[in-house]
Amino acid sequence: MMDSFLLDGQLRRFLLEDLEHGDMTTEAIFSDQDQAAAALVARQLMVVAGMERVAGRVFTLLDAEIRVAGALADGARAEPGTELLSLRGRTRGLLRAERLALNLAQRLCGIATLTDAFVRAVAGLPVKIVDTRKTTPGLRLLEKYAVRAGGGHNHRFGLSDGVLIKDNHIAACGSIAEAVRRVRLQVPHTINIEVETDTLEQVEECLRCQVGIILLDNMDIPTLRQAVHLIKGRALAEASGGVNLETVRAIAETGVNLISVGALTHSARACDIGMDWRD
Amino acid sequence: MMDSFLLDGQLRRFLLEDLEHGDMTTEAIFSDQDQAAAALVARQLMVVAGMERVAGRVFTLLDAEIRVAGALADGARAEPGTELLSLRGRTRGLLRAERLALNLAQRLCGIATLTDAFVRAVAGLPVKIVDTRKTTPGLRLLEKYAVRAGGGHNHRFGLSDGVLIKDNHIAACGSIAEAVRRVRLQVPHTINIEVETDTLEQVEECLRCQVGIILLDNMDIPTLRQAVHLIKGRALAEASGGVNLETVRAIAETGVNLISVGALTHSARACDIGMDWRD
Amino acid sequence: MMDSFLLDGQLRRFLLEDLEHGDMTTEAIFSDQDQAAAALVARQLMVVAGMERVAGRVFTLLDAEIRVAGALADGARAEPGTELLSLRGRTRGLLRAERLALNLAQRLCGIATLTDAFVRAVAGLPVKIVDTRKTTPGLRLLEKYAVRAGGGHNHRFGLSDGVLIKDNHIAACGSIAEAVRRVRLQVPHTINIEVETDTLEQVEECLRCQVGIILLDNMDIPTLRQAVHLIKGRALAEASGGVNLETVRAIAETGVNLISVGALTHSARACDIGMDWRD
Amino acid sequence: MMDSFLLDGQLRRFLLEDLEHGDMTTEAIFSDQDQAAAALVARQLMVVAGMERVAGRVFTLLDAEIRVAGALADGARAEPGTELLSLRGRTRGLLRAERLALNLAQRLCGIATLTDAFVRAVAGLPVKIVDTRKTTPGLRLLEKYAVRAGGGHNHRFGLSDGVLIKDNHIAACGSIAEAVRRVRLQVPHTINIEVETDTLEQVEECLRCQVGIILLDNMDIPTLRQAVHLIKGRALAEASGGVNLETVRAIAETGVNLISVGALTHSARACDIGMDWRD
Amino acid sequence: MMDSFLLDGQLRRFLLEDLEHGDMTTEAIFSDQDQAAAALVARQLMVVAGMERVAGRVFTLLDAEIRVAGALADGARAEPGTELLSLRGRTRGLLRAERLALNLAQRLCGIATLTDAFVRAVAGLPVKIVDTRKTTPGLRLLEKYAVRAGGGHNHRFGLSDGVLIKDNHIAACGSIAEAVRRVRLQVPHTINIEVETDTLEQVEECLRCQVGIILLDNMDIPTLRQAVHLIKGRALAEASGGVNLETVRAIAETGVNLISVGALTHSARACDIGMDWRD
Amino acid sequence: MMDSFLLDGQLRRFLLEDLEHGDMTTEAIFSDQDQAAAALVARQLMVVAGMERVAGRVFTLLDAEIRVAGALADGARAEPGTELLSLRGRTRGLLRAERLALNLAQRLCGIATLTDAFVRAVAGLPVKIVDTRKTTPGLRLLEKYAVRAGGGHNHRFGLSDGVLIKDNHIAACGSIAEAVRRVRLQVPHTINIEVETDTLEQVEECLRCQVGIILLDNMDIPTLRQAVHLIKGRALAEASGGVNLETVRAIAETGVNLISVGALTHSARACDIGMDWRD
Repeated sequence: MMDSFLLDGQLRRFLLEDLEHGDMTTEAIFSDQDQAAAALVARQLMVVAGMERVAGRVFTLLDAEIRVAGALADGARAEPGTELLSLRGRTRGLLRAERLALNLAQRLCGIATLTDAFVRAVAGLPVKIVDTRKTTPGLRLLEKYAVRAGGGHNHRFGLSDGVLIKDNHIAACGSIAEAVRRVRLQVPHTINIEVETDTLEQVEECLRCQVGIILLDNMDIPTLRQAVHLIKGRALAEASGGVNLETVRAIAETGVNLISVGALTHSARACDIGMDWRD
Repeated sequence: MMDSFLLDGQLRRFLLEDLEHGDMTTEAIFSDQDQAAAALVARQLMVVAGMERVAGRVFTLLDAEIRVAGALADGARAEPGTELLSLRGRTRGLLRAERLALNLAQRLCGIATLTDAFVRAVAGLPVKIVDTRKTTPGLRLLEKYAVRAGGGHNHRFGLSDGVLIKDNHIAACGSIAEAVRRVRLQVPHTINIEVETDTLEQVEECLRCQVGIILLDNMDIPTLRQAVHLIKGRALAEASGGVNLETVRAIAETGVNLISVGALTHSARACDIGMDWRD
Repeated sequence: MMDSFLLDGQLRRFLLEDLEHGDMTTEAIFSDQDQAAAALVARQLMVVAGMERVAGRVFTLLDAEIRVAGALADGARAEPGTELLSLRGRTRGLLRAERLALNLAQRLCGIATLTDAFVRAVAGLPVKIVDTRKTTPGLRLLEKYAVRAGGGHNHRFGLSDGVLIKDNHIAACGSIAEAVRRVRLQVPHTINIEVETDTLEQVEECLRCQVGIILLDNMDIPTLRQAVHLIKGRALAEASGGVNLETVRAIAETGVNLISVGALTHSARACDIGMDWRD
Repeated sequence: MMDSFLLDGQLRRFLLEDLEHGDMTTEAIFSDQDQAAAALVARQLMVVAGMERVAGRVFTLLDAEIRVAGALADGARAEPGTELLSLRGRTRGLLRAERLALNLAQRLCGIATLTDAFVRAVAGLPVKIVDTRKTTPGLRLLEKYAVRAGGGHNHRFGLSDGVLIKDNHIAACGSIAEAVRRVRLQVPHTINIEVETDTLEQVEECLRCQVGIILLDNMDIPTLRQAVHLIKGRALAEASGGVNLETVRAIAETGVNLISVGALTHSARACDIGMDWRD
Repeated sequence: MMDSFLLDGQLRRFLLEDLEHGDMTTEAIFSDQDQAAAALVARQLMVVAGMERVAGRVFTLLDAEIRVAGALADGARAEPGTELLSLRGRTRGLLRAERLALNLAQRLCGIATLTDAFVRAVAGLPVKIVDTRKTTPGLRLLEKYAVRAGGGHNHRFGLSDGVLIKDNHIAACGSIAEAVRRVRLQVPHTINIEVETDTLEQVEECLRCQVGIILLDNMDIPTLRQAVHLIKGRALAEASGGVNLETVRAIAETGVNLISVGALTHSARACDIGMDWRD
Repeated sequence: MMDSFLLDGQLRRFLLEDLEHGDMTTEAIFSDQDQAAAALVARQLMVVAGMERVAGRVFTLLDAEIRVAGALADGARAEPGTELLSLRGRTRGLLRAERLALNLAQRLCGIATLTDAFVRAVAGLPVKIVDTRKTTPGLRLLEKYAVRAGGGHNHRFGLSDGVLIKDNHIAACGSIAEAVRRVRLQVPHTINIEVETDTLEQVEECLRCQVGIILLDNMDIPTLRQAVHLIKGRALAEASGGVNLETVRAIAETGVNLISVGALTHSARACDIGMDWRD
């Protein structure tokens, strides 16, 4: 889901954002013949995402003769000092691509590392950690890729490939049943319909409509447990709201199938990664 | 620096990222005639950025008949519960644009709020807080705009509109003097040349070359103070490295003219903003 | 799912395909002041699709001052001679947009009309007629819109918003069970997984895996009936292969839930629509 | 007229229409290492168009390492079972490009096959079968290429590279003479002016203006014959309207130089082509 | 041939070339409320081209609220001091669009003025002054428009809408006859074929092939006269090579129908036009 | 500042401007197998710019198998008859790219040659010849590159990477001091502020504000000399207005640091360069 065919247009735009009409400093100082070697290096403990396909691609897209090697696999754990990716080629190209490669790598590894923390917090329980649409504009595809690298799963990619019936939709229709009926008339059968609920009454209404996924929004632990009990496996139960590393295990223990966490993408801290020069 | 002429292409791409072939849920439930009113509302204390020109524009770009009003000005301080922007128009348009408008508003206000914290931490001192190139790929223009809304200033926008001679450049030339000489041969005279230094010896070398801006990188407080003393106003002194809300005032008190803070853009937390429906 | 926000970029490209550097004939003969009125008129019995949002939009996109009125609604039935859309404005604009508007209208109405024929052929039976990915390159969104206008339903829009496990996938995994397992590890829970089957044994394997949709490919009527009997409502049963207006009712009577018909988009005949000038 | 320089942008857009954020099924099941071989195979008698340059290019554009070989030449005749193009490379790439390659190949071969039928129907007569602007929006270049592969010829590509003066133009000017005069003032001398006529009087008026091409629209056979007699080779005579495989030979026998057939592109049936996997 | 539908994409790119992330000077000094009036004013004698549709459009494209009025018509003659276009609106918009509007207006008026000089030099003779493909990359459409404003005519727009058989083509085929034969097999009948000749023998060969246009390249006056005599109106005679304001009348007097002048677009001097501020 | 990463998108657009749907003449006459060799050859004395990176790139972008060799370096002096670039590959590719490559090469060499004339006119004096924003829309990057090839230097690239406070700005603020103050509040410290002056009083006001660059606009020689005397090296002195090859040395002798010349880009004559075929 992350190959250069899908990514290149976007990476090219990102490079031009930084380079507009070139890198004045580097072009004044280095010639086209100057060669160098470098490596992206972890400066903290992290879970890796996007080294070869994203960070490495930034370099080769700018200069097809740069050699990229030794990329750590997605999901690998790196200690401080670990070499994440090694590079060899024109100094000009290495310097011009450096900032974008780091900006992307730091963000993607940050998301993978935070996702991994959530996944480990629910280790042993039959639950999936999933992301949301609270992604950085323009980076959704990349950020959802990083979530998978960290062991998480993806929720829908956008408004076109999933249905989530929320309070406004329900209010406009008068009932969950009517909202679901209208959606079923329009939406491909390949889509599993999801409804957001705030109360157990709504959960029951969902079950009567044979909804595929029930979002249990901002419910406390006892209510979540009751909801799971009501659902009895007839739909997927997804918890959302108030999820953090302190609360996630208790939420998972209620028996929900999925926990969606906006923080994976909107609040992950960039990992500390540097580019070191080699002789 | 932020009008719709420059922004629209990008916002349109962001909208399509979420909407690809439409919003299946909303289109199944609401008709083209349904109207509604809503408001973006602060759910925490924050400094505002981009309400009218960015968040509001997302709505009118999607549906030119949506009316946007009451936008808080850039730099305004909002309490929890403050209405930041009010909206009226087709329900379909409001729902389809909601997520992107929030994703952008939360990020920009987050940056403005963090910048404001740094600016207030150095209140009364003759120093500017400036940003870096450590921005989100694709969002640099918007993020630098949010820095200004928060009272900060912008460093160069990219590799094409500023010169920063770093350690690799110096090493390749053998000396700061030679690096500066090469750059002066190439670079427009409208550019103020900046050199990164690690030691006081390098600062002195910069002064001998009449460099316009000296970056004092990762120096401790006493060294910064000595550097400022050496420079004596003959160049702008910019501190960077190890800057956070605890250390920034002490750094400012050394007398530097500028403090650049990567965290403004790479580590700002998204502000909590919601969209509430009105009757 | 068909508003101008999503369509305009594409319609603009289509207009430029025909207009490159303008319409030499019309520009030599008419001035910018010349005005005219015209109408798109059905020249055969048809089911209408896209009059206002597609054909009409072609004219206003080219010349924002052209007035479009009286568009027949999607799904309306038109006799030969019925006015489908009326237009008033600059003669130059009307002539320059005419061909593209007709090319699109004829194709979309052709698809709606064929879809309608299939839908009427199964009238009274609890089955949906659905489309496939056998659409014209570049026109998928528009063609799927026309299918809905004709009373049909949409299958997935592309490879990114639906899962269909086919024979190659199954062969590579050794079994349906393994293929489904791998897919479940990766794919958003909002996606309802579909598996293509050729035999009743495969149908049973699908049921053991609790697959959501079972594609019954190229089965004869008795086998389809057995498959539906086996499935007993535990999954959606979709028939495909060998579907035409002669066979579709018998297929529907087997009790399948869905019948997918590639011909809706790859073999619909363009409807005969002309543009008549009014005084 | 069909090389990758002109085509790639368009093919890339078509691929993204189907792939948006990847092929979920294939990516879950196959690894990047899996390799396979396949072939496009005719399932009916057909005239071939676009195998190497279009269908083959879809595969290599998606994955530059896929090897394409054995493409049948444009215009070749293929029996059911004939291999049209063979492919070898990553299974992922083969599966992801399959649908687009087939959708294009089926359409282009359909047009070539229908064009060939018209060309054979007039075999031995000094007449050219030509296409029209009734092409699929976005595919004009490709469809006109397929017409040539089938032995037909191209009419103008769009409104910018040919002049066709129609009834509206004539009505606005009061006479053919005045319309031709106005056009001659504006249009490059490299363009051969064509005028549409409904009557023999109009044909005579065209001859008085020394028009290069006279379109004889919807005339019956005796009138066509009279028109050709009137023209006596002083202009090209082009017949249009009511042309089908039953009528085309009689029309050709009137002595017209060209017969334009909208059906070549708006009503060709897609050929049946499949992709078979090889060991 | 010059309306905003065709131009806007290009003008937007030109504006971004100058504005990338805005106009720092103007935005620091003027507020969004500041209003001003200005006019484009001729500073030399000139023939006008593109005031309303090109220069004026630059302003309204940047800021839709700028009012444009009083544009001189294409082909009008302006004395030094004549107001060519008046503007009223946001000061910011006026300043940001000024340079591009002037750069375009100066170039287009320069071309129109030079074309007009050639046209007047052949006044009274039945000959057309035509342009070539020696245009500025990216500006062909605009430059050919300016040629028409100056009273000239357009040759083909590019390699796709006209045929010009040159020496290499002839050499590759062995004869003009063979080259023409190959071209006639491929090229739409709407195209009037042109052949470049250096000698009277080649002119005669062209006549035998019934070529529509004969380019008489770099022939001296007596040879041109003989060529025209040979052709006797059976083809259009176009002179090229060595054409300047001193030679053009003598060339025209040989009786050629067309004279093509590369200098119209590759060597026109920019006209002097300024933007004056009004109270 | 001129590598293919930055240029390719633009060159591709230029090629399509000429080629739209191919080169009808060449495609009818040559096959894909035909090979040829050719060279770009100077037909006048010139200073070279862009042979390898621009003209050569046009060919390889169109057809990656064309071999480019022997490119003269930027800034080299070429006599009439000198081979500037040699080419070998498909005849079709060579012919289709020829016109664009020549159009670009002629323009860039024209600018380099004119710049070189200005640079030689001030030989021995400590002054730089710089360009302006009076460039051809869409070609700024290329034209500024040619200025450097000719020995000149670049002024700012656009409104986003330099500040030039002009008369309107000053008038709006009431004084230079206020204008400078407002700009300093907004503009990155990496930008060296420039102010346009008409009088010595304004020069003094600039010095009081410690402006980095003072533009001395349209001053006569004695006034320029006085201005330089006043400035005494405290700012860069840039002369503009009334600069031509006759006046430039006298202007330089006043001691200004920079002379900006709009004519470098808006009035350079295209150099005469041809493409000769080799055996």
